[in-house]
Amino acid sequence: MAQNIYDHPEFFAGYSQLPRQTIGLDGAPEWSAVEAMLPDLNGKHIADLGCGFGWASRWMREHSAASVLGFDLSQNMIARAKRDTADQAIEYHIADIETLDLPQSAFELVYSALTFHYIADFGRLVRMISKALTAAGDLVFTIEHPIFMAAAHPHWIIDEDGRKTWPVNGYSVEGERRTDWFAKNVVKYHRTFATTINTLIGAGFELQRVEEFAPMPAQIVRIPELREELERPMMMLVSARKAKPPE
Amino acid sequence: MAQNIYDHPEFFAGYSQLPRQTIGLDGAPEWSAVEAMLPDLNGKHIADLGCGFGWASRWMREHSAASVLGFDLSQNMIARAKRDTADQAIEYHIADIETLDLPQSAFELVYSALTFHYIADFGRLVRMISKALTAAGDLVFTIEHPIFMAAAHPHWIIDEDGRKTWPVNGYSVEGERRTDWFAKNVVKYHRTFATTINTLIGAGFELQRVEEFAPMPAQIVRIPELREELERPMMMLVSARKAKPPE
Repeated sequence: MAQNIYDHPEFFAGYSQLPRQTIGLDGAPEWSAVEAMLPDLNGKHIADLGCGFGWASRWMREHSAASVLGFDLSQNMIARAKRDTADQAIEYHIADIETLDLPQSAFELVYSALTFHYIADFGRLVRMISKALTAAGDLVFTIEHPIFMAAAHPHWIIDEDGRKTWPVNGYSVEGERRTDWFAKNVVKYHRTFATTINTLIGAGFELQRVEEFAPMPAQIVRIPELREELERPMMMLVSARKAKPPE
Repeated sequence: MAQNIYDHPEFFAGYSQLPRQTIGLDGAPEWSAVEAMLPDLNGKHIADLGCGFGWASRWMREHSAASVLGFDLSQNMIARAKRDTADQAIEYHIADIETLDLPQSAFELVYSALTFHYIADFGRLVRMISKALTAAGDLVFTIEHPIFMAAAHPHWIIDEDGRKTWPVNGYSVEGERRTDWFAKNVVKYHRTFATTINTLIGAGFELQRVEEFAPMPAQIVRIPELREELERPMMMLVSARKAKPPE
């Protein structure tokens, strides 16, 4: 079972104060890049894996999706998602994405934001998603970038010019990483870029687009702290289409 | 025109002593990974962009390729490639890959080793290659990894545990990088992983496989210095297939 850090009181208290939770999608600097990668949602049945408070689930219904099924491990998050949603075509369920089995050929889109790096078995997950998608269905997800995740001590350092610099080590050594983020010992799983891409291709997906989030100049004017995101990518955004059933 | 560093006497003298030049493909630690990504060569017409001394061109003919056309900017390298090759089905030409125009639909495989990071206009190059390939033709290339290229000062540093660590900054700022490698001011072009992948997809390629070279345990036993390559990838290997003509 995946670690349920989101129901740890200290973590939940801190996490709930992030702009992406208090003001929603507009508080997530990568959202406009994600939006540009989404297919037309009109009439689609969508699964939202790691739906959190349901911000994206509601947005997709407001953009003509037929239905959204949101899943999250966190009872706190699902409870608030239900409280904040008045829409019969959105359902929320407490579920561990690590072991979740979606019904077959049931969705035209599977969406997931910043969840897959908590999943140990990415291969199983991607094959399960492929089976859950209809023919030519889309998978769009965001994940922490392997450059951001790899190092034993992932924090800013300063180079000889005084420039903010990100350390990379252990890049090729995949697996568990423990970091302190609102709580001690948050468990994440580092995978190389190649593993992420090859796992998708191996499960029958055709890669459509990859983005490594970098802020736009206008975003940096509004939120100067975002400038450091130009130094190293924190997030990877991936869009892939089911080309054939997984073997 | 691309910088012709390979005909700089100092550079050429140093470069020529690298194992990958003195003993050939077996001196390149990534070669077995490259070999695994190559399609069946039997009867194929191949272009080798940045062929250097012709090691790969000759290997491909020894593995049943019908013909190989090798191109390199360096007069020194093409002169030695010609001297070392006795095979009517291999031709070598001095050419700047930056501006090279291959004949249309003439090759079943375009191969390139550690050359594309010297090319400023990757979009033009990839569209040209797509046109030069037959339907479902393959492009297999290796390139310096963007993690290796990005930083203003790309050299090992030591983290708080004394571990070899690679600095990343300026990752999202693409373009020229100048480094000292056998000579001063060698010009290379940094592109993000996403740009490389999206440029290929945009030119009608379907991504087949990506590798970020990491040494195998047996290689590390033989050449202990290779161990540091586990800390950060130096090379990216890409295999893509022409799915449709470029727009």
